[in-house]
Amino acid sequence: MNRTPLSDAPAPFPPRIAVLPRPTPELTTAISRGGGVTVAGPAEADGVVVDFALDPMDLDTELRTLDRSGVRWVQLPRSGVDLFLPAIVRRPDLTWTSAKGCYAESVAEHALTLVLALLRDVPERARAARWGEPSGRSLHGSRAVVVGAGGVGLETVRLLKCFSSHVTVVRRRPIDVVTADRTLGVDQLPEALADADVVIVAAALTSRTRTLLGQREFQCLGPNAIVVNIARGELIDTDALVSALEAGQLAGVGLDVTDPEPLPRGHRLWRHPRALITPHTADTMAMRLPRFAERVTENVQRFGHHRPLAGAVDTAAGY
Amino acid sequence: MNRTPLSDAPAPFPPRIAVLPRPTPELTTAISRGGGVTVAGPAEADGVVVDFALDPMDLDTELRTLDRSGVRWVQLPRSGVDLFLPAIVRRPDLTWTSAKGCYAESVAEHALTLVLALLRDVPERARAARWGEPSGRSLHGSRAVVVGAGGVGLETVRLLKCFSSHVTVVRRRPIDVVTADRTLGVDQLPEALADADVVIVAAALTSRTRTLLGQREFQCLGPNAIVVNIARGELIDTDALVSALEAGQLAGVGLDVTDPEPLPRGHRLWRHPRALITPHTADTMAMRLPRFAERVTENVQRFGHHRPLAGAVDTAAGY
Repeated sequence: MNRTPLSDAPAPFPPRIAVLPRPTPELTTAISRGGGVTVAGPAEADGVVVDFALDPMDLDTELRTLDRSGVRWVQLPRSGVDLFLPAIVRRPDLTWTSAKGCYAESVAEHALTLVLALLRDVPERARAARWGEPSGRSLHGSRAVVVGAGGVGLETVRLLKCFSSHVTVVRRRPIDVVTADRTLGVDQLPEALADADVVIVAAALTSRTRTLLGQREFQCLGPNAIVVNIARGELIDTDALVSALEAGQLAGVGLDVTDPEPLPRGHRLWRHPRALITPHTADTMAMRLPRFAERVTENVQRFGHHRPLAGAVDTAAGY
Repeated sequence: MNRTPLSDAPAPFPPRIAVLPRPTPELTTAISRGGGVTVAGPAEADGVVVDFALDPMDLDTELRTLDRSGVRWVQLPRSGVDLFLPAIVRRPDLTWTSAKGCYAESVAEHALTLVLALLRDVPERARAARWGEPSGRSLHGSRAVVVGAGGVGLETVRLLKCFSSHVTVVRRRPIDVVTADRTLGVDQLPEALADADVVIVAAALTSRTRTLLGQREFQCLGPNAIVVNIARGELIDTDALVSALEAGQLAGVGLDVTDPEPLPRGHRLWRHPRALITPHTADTMAMRLPRFAERVTENVQRFGHHRPLAGAVDTAAGY
């Protein structure tokens, strides 16, 4: 990932930054490193950094304070902004930035972990209590489809290319991803799925991408394909997925996110031998905090220098 | 991996190659592609290709035929030659080549699969029937030790560097591995282990490397370290490993090879929650055969052109 090196020049003004719900040592340090000062609340702030500890539902309430303040920028802590959309929609006049791209490395690493684990029959091996018969497939030379070309999608492409996979990226706007072998628009998803060995869902959740993979899409896949989702559970129609898995229409599924989430006890996916579920741990808080602090430092510095901020949210597109 | 491109020039003579125990279509084609001809048996052959189907114990018997033949070269099908050493020792006058390097990609991929699965708590997740608490570590920025600098070791280093790990290679002769951050001699193994997050055993099995990792070495590791073995089971003292695991001296172990192998039913490693055992499937026969056929083609061509053969066995070192 390209990170803009920090300039040594002082900011024209030291941005006053409030942290919601309250400052933490990590974020106060990050703001200071970016040339800003941490202030007690939004009323006296130029910008607001939203910590993970703030319930997204509470941001809308907090915005009433912002209405009467000089706040011009809000930094959100997650890559996906879907949970914050009510607040974003209420204040389109503010500059909103997300943490998109920040957690790409660890999330893409987790996607690859699920891919390799499924190809190499790790779920079956982990459950075994005796030596089994040889089985497994190699990722080398496989055909992979990455749905989404955000930070996680692009980092996933990079990792897949380390294993000399043939990679197709499917994205909303069919602008070529130069690191991939092929870029297709989302309307060509069925074409991409038809010869895929591996499908990794790394798209943002929007009203257009909800249940992007459903019964029709699973029918496009060959019986050896595996599907991995490390983005949002709602991108996949869970019932259609379970039916496809049970019907042998796909060879395995790795889910770090589910719909519903958490996946309830007794759900059929828990029992399926070719399903591997991780509880939304593609990036744990311990992995996220240092990366978020880096983004805060970078954006406080950019904000202080009136430069474009990293991770700007397209409020119309919803990510 | 560098593969010498095939020259279009015909061989000065078409090498006569026997396949033991008997020719297969894949190997006959591979010999033909290298400019050779497949003959019925060693008595009329210049070189012998040993297929996976030959029991290594039978090679010694077959050598009695070779005694009275013009055979000058024997191509073995595996990367490790330990099982064939009785035959090799009997005929040091022959040129012996192994398949070393051929299976590096798939074996290193499997090593990385076990590493990522352990770091991301996949065994625990695969066995779970309900949503769990967040956990897991990232390979990014971790400190990794690769023991052995053969084809698999070097390919493992390459993959680890795709995840920006700090990589130390430990090898018999401390010649720097340029793709690693640090190269140490085998006498410095304790030093390498002391701050390792991940240890991958990729060494050849020789009389010097048997139980290379034992009680003393496990005591060097920190409690968060994981150990992966994709080489030979005998490189690790299994009892010492189990004791270290049960005492919390290491965080997890991933074994594709075991001692004894197969790991017997009821062995304590099957029950341990932080052990992940795969049944010697780092490269399945389906992955190996195309790679072995490539090596046969290359070496038949080199043999026909009196060029040095790929994968020459150092009969003194035993690999």
